[in-house]
Amino acid sequence: MDRIITLTTDFGMSSPYVGAMKGVILSINPRARIVDLAHDLPPHNIRHAAFVLAEATRFFPARTIHVAVVDPGVGTARTIVYARIDGRDYVAPDNGLLGRLAARTPPSKIVAVTNRQVCLPRVSATFHGRDIMAPVAAQLSLGLVPDVLGPRREHLVPLEWPEARTLTNRIEGEVVAVDSFGNLITNITAEMLAGVPVDDSVVVQCDEHETLGIFTTYADQPEMTLIALVGSSGLLELAIVGERASAMLAVHEGAKVTVSW
Amino acid sequence: MDRIITLTTDFGMSSPYVGAMKGVILSINPRARIVDLAHDLPPHNIRHAAFVLAEATRFFPARTIHVAVVDPGVGTARTIVYARIDGRDYVAPDNGLLGRLAARTPPSKIVAVTNRQVCLPRVSATFHGRDIMAPVAAQLSLGLVPDVLGPRREHLVPLEWPEARTLTNRIEGEVVAVDSFGNLITNITAEMLAGVPVDDSVVVQCDEHETLGIFTTYADQPEMTLIALVGSSGLLELAIVGERASAMLAVHEGAKVTVSW
Amino acid sequence: MDRIITLTTDFGMSSPYVGAMKGVILSINPRARIVDLAHDLPPHNIRHAAFVLAEATRFFPARTIHVAVVDPGVGTARTIVYARIDGRDYVAPDNGLLGRLAARTPPSKIVAVTNRQVCLPRVSATFHGRDIMAPVAAQLSLGLVPDVLGPRREHLVPLEWPEARTLTNRIEGEVVAVDSFGNLITNITAEMLAGVPVDDSVVVQCDEHETLGIFTTYADQPEMTLIALVGSSGLLELAIVGERASAMLAVHEGAKVTVSW
Repeated sequence: MDRIITLTTDFGMSSPYVGAMKGVILSINPRARIVDLAHDLPPHNIRHAAFVLAEATRFFPARTIHVAVVDPGVGTARTIVYARIDGRDYVAPDNGLLGRLAARTPPSKIVAVTNRQVCLPRVSATFHGRDIMAPVAAQLSLGLVPDVLGPRREHLVPLEWPEARTLTNRIEGEVVAVDSFGNLITNITAEMLAGVPVDDSVVVQCDEHETLGIFTTYADQPEMTLIALVGSSGLLELAIVGERASAMLAVHEGAKVTVSW
Repeated sequence: MDRIITLTTDFGMSSPYVGAMKGVILSINPRARIVDLAHDLPPHNIRHAAFVLAEATRFFPARTIHVAVVDPGVGTARTIVYARIDGRDYVAPDNGLLGRLAARTPPSKIVAVTNRQVCLPRVSATFHGRDIMAPVAAQLSLGLVPDVLGPRREHLVPLEWPEARTLTNRIEGEVVAVDSFGNLITNITAEMLAGVPVDDSVVVQCDEHETLGIFTTYADQPEMTLIALVGSSGLLELAIVGERASAMLAVHEGAKVTVSW
Repeated sequence: MDRIITLTTDFGMSSPYVGAMKGVILSINPRARIVDLAHDLPPHNIRHAAFVLAEATRFFPARTIHVAVVDPGVGTARTIVYARIDGRDYVAPDNGLLGRLAARTPPSKIVAVTNRQVCLPRVSATFHGRDIMAPVAAQLSLGLVPDVLGPRREHLVPLEWPEARTLTNRIEGEVVAVDSFGNLITNITAEMLAGVPVDDSVVVQCDEHETLGIFTTYADQPEMTLIALVGSSGLLELAIVGERASAMLAVHEGAKVTVSW
C-alpha cells in the first residue's frame, strides 16, 4: 500500500507554496498519496494549528505521514523534527505544533532533522516546507529509516497551552480556537464538566456575554441564540445558532470563559 | 478500480473537520480515492449546496460516492440518508441537500441510515459527517450493500427551491446562488428563454438594476458593465464584467429577477 | 504509473466549477491522479497566476499534466493551447498564463486546441475549463498524441510582465504578486542584487515606505517591522514580520519598489 502523506499549512490556496510542496513530494515518490488536511489555518498561529492537528490526525490510519508547516521561525535556530506519535509519523518545525498530540500520547521517537542529504540541494532560508519537510516526508514514504535524519531528541519544544482551572462551583478557562463556523472552542473539557449540572442553574460566561445551561447540539436553541455545548472535540464550545459567534460577539482566542453553578 | 469518494462541505479548510472525515474514511478503506469537491460552501446554506452538488456531481463516473455535509440540524431528528441517483451513490443529511439532483432524476433507492454498527463507536451530537457519513461512505466503497444501512424510504425531504414563472412577455425569477466570481445565478433556465429575443429589446432587471440583451459570454461586454447571459449550468446569470456583481450591486440570494420583452 | 493532472484555477472552493472539472477528468480516465495546485487565485489575474504556475509546477515530475484556468476571455477568439515546457505538459488558455514558464524555458511544442472531438459533446461559451481543458487533459493522461489536438503554433501569447531595471546604484522594480501572507513579491531578482550591499547602506523603498538592509529570513527583524529579503522564489520581497504587509501598507500589485545604495 502506498503511503499517505497529509499536508497541514497556513499557506492558503492562492500562492505557489502548497503546489511546490506537492511537486517536491511527487518528484521523489510519484506513488505517494497526498491528502490535503487544512491549508487555510490562521497565519503563524501555532496554537490553532496544534489544535487542528490533534483533532484531525488521530483519525488517520497508522503509518500515515503528517507534514505540518506553520513556521514563523523559518530560517532561525528552531529545529525541524520527525516525531513518531501514537503510530503515526510527523514532520514539523519544533515550535509547539505537535504539542497537543504529544500531551495526549508521548512520542515514541523524536529525531532532529539535520542531515542535509535528505533535503533539496539548495535549502532556502524562507521555505523549509518545500526544501526540507516535503523531501523528508517523501523519503520516509519510501521507507527511509528516521534515524538517518539526524540525532535523537528527548523532548519536543512544549506548546504554550493554557489549562483550565477547576475551583469550587466554578471552572475558569478560555477560548483556544475559533473554528470555521465562528464557534468559540474553549480549553474546558468534557471530563471537567462531568459533575456540573447541565440545566439552567449553570451559567457560562464569555467576556461580557453569558448563557444558561449546557446543551447537546446547536439546534437545541433557536437561531441567533448564544448556546454552550460540548463539541465534537470533547471541549466546551460557545456558538450562536446560525451565525458566527466570533464576529457577532467580537470574541477572539484568549477570551476568558467561566462556567459557574 | 478503487472507488472514488467526493466530499462537499461548508467546513472550510481552517478547521480539523475535513481532515477528520478523510482520516475516518482512510482508516476504514485505505484504498479509497478521496476527491475534494467543495469545502468553502456558505455555512448552513442548503440551497447553495444543493445547486453545487447538482452541477458538479453529474460529471463524475457512475459508482462515485458523493458525501455532502451541510447540516445545520446535526444531532436533531433529521435523518441521514443514502440515495442512489442516476447511477451514483450519495450520503447526506436528509434536509434538501439532494433536492436539485432528485428533481432531475428521481432516486432509484433511498435508505435511512439508522444502523449504528456502521458508524464510529461513539457518535457525537455535533459532527455526523465524521461519525456517521464518513464511515458509511468508506464501507460503501468496500462493497457494503446499502440496505444494511437501515430501512428503505420512499421520498427525500424536498428542497425549498423557488421556481421561476413564465408570463406573457415576461419571466419572473430570482437569484438562487452567488458563485465564487460574485456572479448572480438565477432560477431562469435556458429552456424558459427559448423563445425570448436576445437583442436589445429584452430587458433583464435585478432589484433596481437593469441591462439590455442576453449575451453569450462575459467578454461580450466591456469591463464594469452589467451583463446577462446563460451560464455553464444552463441558467440565466447576471455578471459585471471583471468585477463581483454581488458586491457591487449589493445583491444577494433571493433578489428578484425579471426578463421582459 | 498513472499520470498526475494538477489543477490551478481562480474558481475558489464554493462553486461547482472545480468539482465539475474533476468529474469530467475522472469520467474519461478514472485512474488519473488529480492534484489541487491552487484554487483561490485572485479572479482573472493572469500575472499572479503565471507567477504561481512558474513557481509551483517546476517542482513536479516530468510528464505531469498541468491544467490552468484563469480565463477572463472565455468564449472569445482567444485560443486554448497545449504546450510542452521543460518536460511537462500544460493545457491553458493562450492569454499569457504560461508566460513566466515559457520565459524560463521555451516550449518544445505548442498546439492550438481546435479539435472539437476531444471536447465534451456540448461546449458552453463560459466554461472551457470543464468542456475543453479537462477532457483534453484526461485524454492526454491516457496517451493521446498532442498533435491530434489541432495545428502547431510557433509562439504563445506573451505575458505582460514588467521587468526591473538596473541603474547606477539603484534598481527600479515593482510589486508583481502579493502572496497569501500579504508579503509583497517584486520583480527584482537575486541575480540583480548580486553586487548590492546587504547592510544598512542599502535602502529599499516601496511607495512611501522604506526599510534598510536586505535580510535572510523573516525572523531577522522584530514583529511589526518592515523587512526586505530574497524569498523562496529568488525574488526580492517585502514583508512585515508577523503581519500582512499588503494590508498594513495598503500596497498592491504594481506598486513601485526601488533598491538604492
